[in-house]
Amino acid sequence: MNLSRILVLGITTLLASTGLSTTARADEGMWLYSAPPRAQIKAKYGFDLTAVWLDHLMKSSVRFNSGGSGSFVSGDGLVITNHHVGADDLQKLSDETHNYIRDGFYAATPASEKKCVDLELNVLQSIEDITQRVNAAIPAGATGDAAALARRKITAEIEKESLDKTGLRSDVVTLYQGGAYHLYRFKKYTDIRLVFAPEGSTAFFGGDPDNFEYPRYDLDICLFRVYENDRPVQPQHFLRWSTAGAKEGELTFVSGHPGTTRRLLTVPELEYIRDSQFPLQLASLKRREVLLANWSARDTENARRAHDELFGIQNTRKARDGGLAALQDPHFFGTRVAAETAFKQKLAARADGADALAAFDRIAAAQKSVAAIAVRNRLLEGGTAFDADSFVLARRLLRHADEHPKPNGERLREFSDARRESFEQQLFSEKPIYPDLETVTLGDSLTALVEQLGAADPLVKTILAGKSPRTRAAELISSTQVRDVAFRKKLYAGDATVVANAKDPLIEIARAIDAEARALRRMVESADETKQQAQAVIGKARFALEGTSNYPDATFTLRLSYGPVQGYMEAGKNIPAYTTIGGLYERSLKQGNRDPFELPERWLKKRATLDLATPLNFVSTADIIGGNSGSPVVNTAGEFVGIIFDGNLASLSGDFGYEDVASRAVSVASAGILEALRKVYEAPALANELVTGRR
Amino acid sequence: MNLSRILVLGITTLLASTGLSTTARADEGMWLYSAPPRAQIKAKYGFDLTAVWLDHLMKSSVRFNSGGSGSFVSGDGLVITNHHVGADDLQKLSDETHNYIRDGFYAATPASEKKCVDLELNVLQSIEDITQRVNAAIPAGATGDAAALARRKITAEIEKESLDKTGLRSDVVTLYQGGAYHLYRFKKYTDIRLVFAPEGSTAFFGGDPDNFEYPRYDLDICLFRVYENDRPVQPQHFLRWSTAGAKEGELTFVSGHPGTTRRLLTVPELEYIRDSQFPLQLASLKRREVLLANWSARDTENARRAHDELFGIQNTRKARDGGLAALQDPHFFGTRVAAETAFKQKLAARADGADALAAFDRIAAAQKSVAAIAVRNRLLEGGTAFDADSFVLARRLLRHADEHPKPNGERLREFSDARRESFEQQLFSEKPIYPDLETVTLGDSLTALVEQLGAADPLVKTILAGKSPRTRAAELISSTQVRDVAFRKKLYAGDATVVANAKDPLIEIARAIDAEARALRRMVESADETKQQAQAVIGKARFALEGTSNYPDATFTLRLSYGPVQGYMEAGKNIPAYTTIGGLYERSLKQGNRDPFELPERWLKKRATLDLATPLNFVSTADIIGGNSGSPVVNTAGEFVGIIFDGNLASLSGDFGYEDVASRAVSVASAGILEALRKVYEAPALANELVTGRR
Repeated sequence: MNLSRILVLGITTLLASTGLSTTARADEGMWLYSAPPRAQIKAKYGFDLTAVWLDHLMKSSVRFNSGGSGSFVSGDGLVITNHHVGADDLQKLSDETHNYIRDGFYAATPASEKKCVDLELNVLQSIEDITQRVNAAIPAGATGDAAALARRKITAEIEKESLDKTGLRSDVVTLYQGGAYHLYRFKKYTDIRLVFAPEGSTAFFGGDPDNFEYPRYDLDICLFRVYENDRPVQPQHFLRWSTAGAKEGELTFVSGHPGTTRRLLTVPELEYIRDSQFPLQLASLKRREVLLANWSARDTENARRAHDELFGIQNTRKARDGGLAALQDPHFFGTRVAAETAFKQKLAARADGADALAAFDRIAAAQKSVAAIAVRNRLLEGGTAFDADSFVLARRLLRHADEHPKPNGERLREFSDARRESFEQQLFSEKPIYPDLETVTLGDSLTALVEQLGAADPLVKTILAGKSPRTRAAELISSTQVRDVAFRKKLYAGDATVVANAKDPLIEIARAIDAEARALRRMVESADETKQQAQAVIGKARFALEGTSNYPDATFTLRLSYGPVQGYMEAGKNIPAYTTIGGLYERSLKQGNRDPFELPERWLKKRATLDLATPLNFVSTADIIGGNSGSPVVNTAGEFVGIIFDGNLASLSGDFGYEDVASRAVSVASAGILEALRKVYEAPALANELVTGRR
Repeated sequence: MNLSRILVLGITTLLASTGLSTTARADEGMWLYSAPPRAQIKAKYGFDLTAVWLDHLMKSSVRFNSGGSGSFVSGDGLVITNHHVGADDLQKLSDETHNYIRDGFYAATPASEKKCVDLELNVLQSIEDITQRVNAAIPAGATGDAAALARRKITAEIEKESLDKTGLRSDVVTLYQGGAYHLYRFKKYTDIRLVFAPEGSTAFFGGDPDNFEYPRYDLDICLFRVYENDRPVQPQHFLRWSTAGAKEGELTFVSGHPGTTRRLLTVPELEYIRDSQFPLQLASLKRREVLLANWSARDTENARRAHDELFGIQNTRKARDGGLAALQDPHFFGTRVAAETAFKQKLAARADGADALAAFDRIAAAQKSVAAIAVRNRLLEGGTAFDADSFVLARRLLRHADEHPKPNGERLREFSDARRESFEQQLFSEKPIYPDLETVTLGDSLTALVEQLGAADPLVKTILAGKSPRTRAAELISSTQVRDVAFRKKLYAGDATVVANAKDPLIEIARAIDAEARALRRMVESADETKQQAQAVIGKARFALEGTSNYPDATFTLRLSYGPVQGYMEAGKNIPAYTTIGGLYERSLKQGNRDPFELPERWLKKRATLDLATPLNFVSTADIIGGNSGSPVVNTAGEFVGIIFDGNLASLSGDFGYEDVASRAVSVASAGILEALRKVYEAPALANELVTGRR
């Protein structure tokens, strides 16, 4: 279940991996706002990235803490993102009689805007390099566990200090695999109201089969309004709407929050992903997809309850399948190996290269230690053995009671003082949790637990208590009280004794695995620390050897990508950059207007009124990945010309590298959005607000 | 892909496993026609199973070699089976413009009956116990490999001798895990013509979500006519149609071909299934289900092409999930352990028990040796790494050239003289094979190969030839010639040199893995032989200790099951034995008439003409399993009262044991079939033929 997740979406590379090279090619890169690719853009496009231009775009960009991106598009606090980002909130607002994901929503008046259940938005205000302060806090010679603890302590201290001083959400972000540490400060909003969503069938036209494909015809948008003190905020920065949009060949920028890339990993780390991590994850995703698809098909209400979860699984599954295909391609993987080998040879030729070479070995050894505990860690600390929101809540209650009495710097990171508000926002969320769905998912994940650890494993026996996985799941879900918010508040306010005395069966399951789960986490964090220290050494050597600057792997923090609107060739066929509203009707007709190519009645009726040549979707070469969903696409004037919602199939290797030959980012065009709002949804006020910037 | 398969369908047990006990309980058992449960039935139901009654039912029963059961229901060669059994043939007869699986078919005249592409039907004529002759051919003291080879030789000799003497298909069948060997002789038919099939949505109403559920409302039937010399056969035995059907509580019999059960396995063998075999198989099924569901959703023609394959996968997946749930239930598994422990204690108390106890150890050791090679065996000899009909054909061509020159008794079993006709029927089948679908399935299975053996495995490198799995699959499928029947005939007529000179890339892949694949098969067969010898020793000891007779595990040979029509309790609710045609309309309405609960236009139109109280489906306590699909259900007068098409969810543990509390076999009622044929399909001639037994 997705109490928190990064939405996975299109990405990039297959042919021209940059491997370990530090020279970004073509329009590659998810650049830090604090180190934008000024020179490259100036050289290639003759455009100056000014500080003012960047600051405006940065402060107009919005992070959805549920796992996506967005932007302010009016001076009255209107924020646009993807339907598939807002879906999490649409799902939470829906019930047996209101299905906003399927049917859409429009608040024609301010009073009818609907407050989201637990959505938090973040707007980046500043970036501060704190690498020296962080590293200085690690005792000389400390490694592994000891260093990890010290780093956790200084991190919590910096975050708390910044929060107290500025009142802003303050996150220490690890960049370059440990080569740098930056402090990101965000303005945080928690009163977010739903304004508009199209029908799911329009937003996600073509469904899972067309996901990551192109040409596409999706109106994948969702609009919210941000409130403070019960009034719409008047943001200083928001994007002006371009009614014309971008022309083919025009340079555009993407400002969003790419979640994770793995482009700077060493070969042993990539081998681990290829041979173990992705196969394991894919098997888990596919079994959950089969489970939820089957359960959904049994009943329309089942389908509504499982919708958002099933979408997320299918989306990630398709992205991972594409990533694994890249890693299993001997040519692609070979370029990574060759790049690392070449770099190591250069190191070996230098007198001061020995340190960096030894660092490579330390990473390999740390990776091996992680691999050895991966299965148990995934099941127990990762929680995949307990696939139910109820379990997530149970564990948070248990751990809060244990962590809260500790000094801030010694707690598990998510329990630090600086994160308390966001933590409580999630813990006390009134979002609906369905016991029938939870029973099904917990039953299946307990089955997977028995498969993976064996029926004879002592911990498995403790968890099952002599019952079958399905019977045990039904018993645990029906008897736990954690779905009651009042119960959660009571336990949160109490101490460990209060939690223990509640004798909640699911909390007791969390307790039964907690010692091992914490130990596993500690081992992983210790290995991560080892890797980070080693990467810092390698990074230094690389800088000495290659001298150029580069962008770090994605970390779900704000980044700038760029590239022109541009079609591509696929299997000898020219794929044009733009699709149109007319194309949407054609594809639906060709597929017999059947699900998932079915158009809502409203669209069928309004066809004659529409300008069918209006651009609907387009592709550009910008370097994006999951988490970029909902990112604004702007032109050189900083105007909103579209919104990222996907990458094409070729882009799925972008986790590990970038190419701009066939990989493309896919966006909804600003013109198509206006045409649909005006003529199909008859929402002139909303369309006017986008164009004028004022309600 | 299913060149041959056993259709998996409902089954039995959870609460009252018989474990290793030899005393059948309740209405348990899939009985040999040569050792029917006369005494039990006489005692419990007062009914005499006479030789004449049994002979009539046996010779009216039909085996579908594509993996199901059926029966003669007219003197003019009409055979009834399930739609999901006939689907294999409907799929092969369909093309881009005719979708018989989806739309159904009715031949109103003999001339419009459609000849199936490669269907073979078998009708059992006799059973002969040849245990002594088989065992006498094993050299004294021979074990493992040597014994397996000797057993293969005597088997081929007996089958060839019988075929030459009788002209009947002659199969040696291993029963009681090696406790007995019987010779089954079948009349074989290969000119089978399609007469009638309802729409897929009626036959499989409720689709995968309702599969293995009850109440059900499926018209899961398909009718064929058997020809010889271009004329309908006039079988001596066929079942008379009961227009009234069976009343609740009435004793009924099921005559069909259950495929596989594992009720006599030892605990280490069951542990292996629970901890390794089923989890591995389920992961493979689920990844293929996701693959094909996604590919099908992209285009209606894709959906048609993948339909039968996808159905088979979903059906097996659901059955295996149920079987695994039973094995993971500590209570259920505990009864199996307790029964074996008790039996071993009895053995230990006897002077002559040591032999049997040692036999248990030999089985455990053999099982361990099989487990050690399971992954590679499944991929290479099992062929799961090469999921494409084209590969199956390629390997058959390769091996035929190698096996044919050998003496009959030394060949791999499927290449023996006695099996040649059936083998050629498959090899030269004109059934459509779709390169686009084959590319997708081969690409995914090669991906699984890399995942499971690792990218560095030398055999993997040979197979991929430096390409990615998907690229390699596309290359192999597009360049092989094996989809051309003339090419296959040419290679089959030639020798190994002809095959080698063809340089067919897919045949060369089969060659590249052949040495290891054969070696793996030999190891498994050797272990099986060890187990069979050990089971024979244990069987003897069991007979000495417990004295009663029992039925062997299922082997896709004709068996008799029995039990009354009877409802059951589920979660405190009484589930009645019968559903009605009226119930079908109600369920469709409640689910918004949406797929898979959509009724065809024809059914919506004819509603007013139908007697809505007509029974449509019913449940009985008969002990059935996959392969029983299409089995006739008869009353004590030997009349056809229904046709098995499923088991309920509780029955899914029947692989490993039987219970009659909540497990039920699910059938289509004879009355419902008539009502639908007469009023919905307006096929009075066909309905009359069923009632009168003559066209």
